[in-house]
Amino acid sequence: MSDPKQVIIVGGGFAGLNAAKSLHRCKGIQITLIDRRNHHLFQPLLYQVAMAGLSPADIAAPIRGVLSRQKNLRVVCGEAKHVDASEQVLSTSIGELRFDYLLLSAGAMHSYFGHDDWEINAPGLKTIEQATEIRRRVLQAFEQAELTNDPLERRRHLTFVVVGGGPTGVELAGAIGEMSRFTLAKDFRNIDSKQARIILIEAGPRVLPMFSEQLASRAMRDLEQLGVQTWTSSRVTNITAQGVDVSGEHISASTVLWAAGIEASRLGSQSHFACDRQGRVMVNQDLSIPEHPNIFVAGDLCHFRGPDNQPLPGIAPVAIQQGRHFGKVVQADLRGQPRPEFHYVDKGQMATIGRSRAIAEVGKLRLAGFSAWLAWLVVHIYFLTGFRNRLFVIMSWAWSFVTFRRGARLILAKDWRAYAKSPAFDSQDSQAFTPAEDKASESNEDSTHAA
Amino acid sequence: MSDPKQVIIVGGGFAGLNAAKSLHRCKGIQITLIDRRNHHLFQPLLYQVAMAGLSPADIAAPIRGVLSRQKNLRVVCGEAKHVDASEQVLSTSIGELRFDYLLLSAGAMHSYFGHDDWEINAPGLKTIEQATEIRRRVLQAFEQAELTNDPLERRRHLTFVVVGGGPTGVELAGAIGEMSRFTLAKDFRNIDSKQARIILIEAGPRVLPMFSEQLASRAMRDLEQLGVQTWTSSRVTNITAQGVDVSGEHISASTVLWAAGIEASRLGSQSHFACDRQGRVMVNQDLSIPEHPNIFVAGDLCHFRGPDNQPLPGIAPVAIQQGRHFGKVVQADLRGQPRPEFHYVDKGQMATIGRSRAIAEVGKLRLAGFSAWLAWLVVHIYFLTGFRNRLFVIMSWAWSFVTFRRGARLILAKDWRAYAKSPAFDSQDSQAFTPAEDKASESNEDSTHAA
Repeated sequence: MSDPKQVIIVGGGFAGLNAAKSLHRCKGIQITLIDRRNHHLFQPLLYQVAMAGLSPADIAAPIRGVLSRQKNLRVVCGEAKHVDASEQVLSTSIGELRFDYLLLSAGAMHSYFGHDDWEINAPGLKTIEQATEIRRRVLQAFEQAELTNDPLERRRHLTFVVVGGGPTGVELAGAIGEMSRFTLAKDFRNIDSKQARIILIEAGPRVLPMFSEQLASRAMRDLEQLGVQTWTSSRVTNITAQGVDVSGEHISASTVLWAAGIEASRLGSQSHFACDRQGRVMVNQDLSIPEHPNIFVAGDLCHFRGPDNQPLPGIAPVAIQQGRHFGKVVQADLRGQPRPEFHYVDKGQMATIGRSRAIAEVGKLRLAGFSAWLAWLVVHIYFLTGFRNRLFVIMSWAWSFVTFRRGARLILAKDWRAYAKSPAFDSQDSQAFTPAEDKASESNEDSTHAA
Repeated sequence: MSDPKQVIIVGGGFAGLNAAKSLHRCKGIQITLIDRRNHHLFQPLLYQVAMAGLSPADIAAPIRGVLSRQKNLRVVCGEAKHVDASEQVLSTSIGELRFDYLLLSAGAMHSYFGHDDWEINAPGLKTIEQATEIRRRVLQAFEQAELTNDPLERRRHLTFVVVGGGPTGVELAGAIGEMSRFTLAKDFRNIDSKQARIILIEAGPRVLPMFSEQLASRAMRDLEQLGVQTWTSSRVTNITAQGVDVSGEHISASTVLWAAGIEASRLGSQSHFACDRQGRVMVNQDLSIPEHPNIFVAGDLCHFRGPDNQPLPGIAPVAIQQGRHFGKVVQADLRGQPRPEFHYVDKGQMATIGRSRAIAEVGKLRLAGFSAWLAWLVVHIYFLTGFRNRLFVIMSWAWSFVTFRRGARLILAKDWRAYAKSPAFDSQDSQAFTPAEDKASESNEDSTHAA
């Protein structure tokens, strides 16, 4: 009996995890799944963590835990750096790994269109740490507004800007609106949280371009009721700790969130594969890379031409189906059968607005309002990995829905040693909480006076 | 009608929160509750967060949320620095606050007996940030053990030291033991997590000195079954990133946890009140400070002589009862009635060992094993603040108990910007995860390569 084929999967997100699971019973292979993190993240619900509706553990599962029963697989915590396609070797932070089959499913990150200095003042939403940082800033803004007597400062703290009119931006903006108008409504004495102003900025002519105009319109009206103003055809030219410059105007805001640009992991481009402008790797119909039949790409890192000749969007259903397709191709190879081509079964798109509304579109079917929200709920819970997560998220949402209370409203310090010692007169620990100060002093410093 | 009396409560822990609630319907007062943090923390369950059994949001509640319906109260996020007893003014980070009644319930922190440099290598367990940092280090240790081929390194990563044989130390040690022998048992391929060695170090002659010898003995036997060795009459002389020096020996360990010394908030000593050696403020029978009848102390900051002439322990039931007593005294004053004296109703002590055992002692009643654990469960759930927390903690524990799975096993980065950008060849982001390196480079640096 020959040696087992070495299968390497880079990334434990939707694509990688489903690829691994699809090879659960496959004999004759040894799988290594490598990820920088120890957990699989259910990204569609990350905004709920950012808006203090869910805890990180509700939407993440330890990769080892999910795959512990799979005997032909081992999980490695490390970082993939470079693919040597001719030698069939993957260079990683923990050594060189030889492969017979390689799946690159390392996902995508945010792009600030060349303005990386904006990041410190406008966090994105791709990781749990970013989500809790956003949560911290949003809650802190209300605290700051409550404390100050300066009306201009108060206004600045009660102004929230979200850059990017796609589903993520819409969901974030709507959630802040809901928080300000319902959840926090009774919590403060000096301010009326309902006076919070939320501005959603989109460079294109309309928000939610992937949805029909009718549904996008409906979404904007629902957002308005939550206090969200939408500025379309507006391009951000600068972001500082004071606010945002957009289309010649300056918006004074202490909280700016980034949901605009996406760029794929550089693993593809650095390995010299043909990529598109966002760094996504071009693939054949079976998801393999041209001239490298044993190297595959799936998920947000993948540029796959759909039937309309456009690349498939970077959404979860695409990643899940592509991950599973990799499994099918490997098994076909092992059986000596021809490789199947990948065909995406369009599951449509959804976006929530606040706590009880959404829009959903599958082909010609369009839903809006509460029915769309129910559909969204069912779909997302179904896809959550691991029974615990599903049950808990249901319970958490049910509670939140009934009471408007957002249970996970914790403001946590950036430095774990903050608050660990008695401060009294220790000026380093003294707390003049302002997100602006936090941001200014963010890089490379001892952040014991972080909030 | 005269102006309302200004009542200030410092700290939203068990004492402060219960003091505030006890004055819910009291007319003629205006209460300000000031806390550096925005949440109330259920500290007895903090070790569960550290051991990845619960999420931070399960054991914390936003103070504003808990008290939002109390009309005579406002919550201020700030830090109390100094009490001017003669002027009846409290200096805080957000200004000078005048008071008619003041309750100092600012709690206590860890003490490293003058060796503050040990903190970086041996985190304590008093805040959520410390709990998640401990969680990170413990999980990371197993990951490191899995990755290394050096048997000495592997041993070091699989050795855990807990300093301090009180309830916190016992609970931490038992939980690591449970994690290594059950929860993570199937997760790794190179290591057998059951080989983890846990050493509990106590300077006194036995662990759990506040319990009877019989129960303390039982606890030690239960701990042994979870892989915990107990070293009594052993004093730690040094802690570095490599391990611990204790009683002339060196233990090579990559994870050291601190549960040994306690010192009260310096608010008392810095305000020149008479304090004991730990900084706890001496009080009269009605909890007021000698010569300052309108300034009170409750909780861990308070030194109250019990009937045996010993100070009451710094545990939750004491804090809760003292907080409520403050409410009674204020109301007695407003009615022109004599002030009641404080009498502690001893609710006993409890400590858990692992997932299904505990010891509990109330007066002469002693329980051990599973029955004690059930009692512990009921009591702690009852005292959790807020219905959501109770329900969720029940669900979470039930699940954990049934399946041994620890759902909240996330390793999160210290820097929220870590993982937010595509690293590929960016060496600053390259991941050679070792807690030792993290610790060595901990202070004042850019921790983008933190785990």
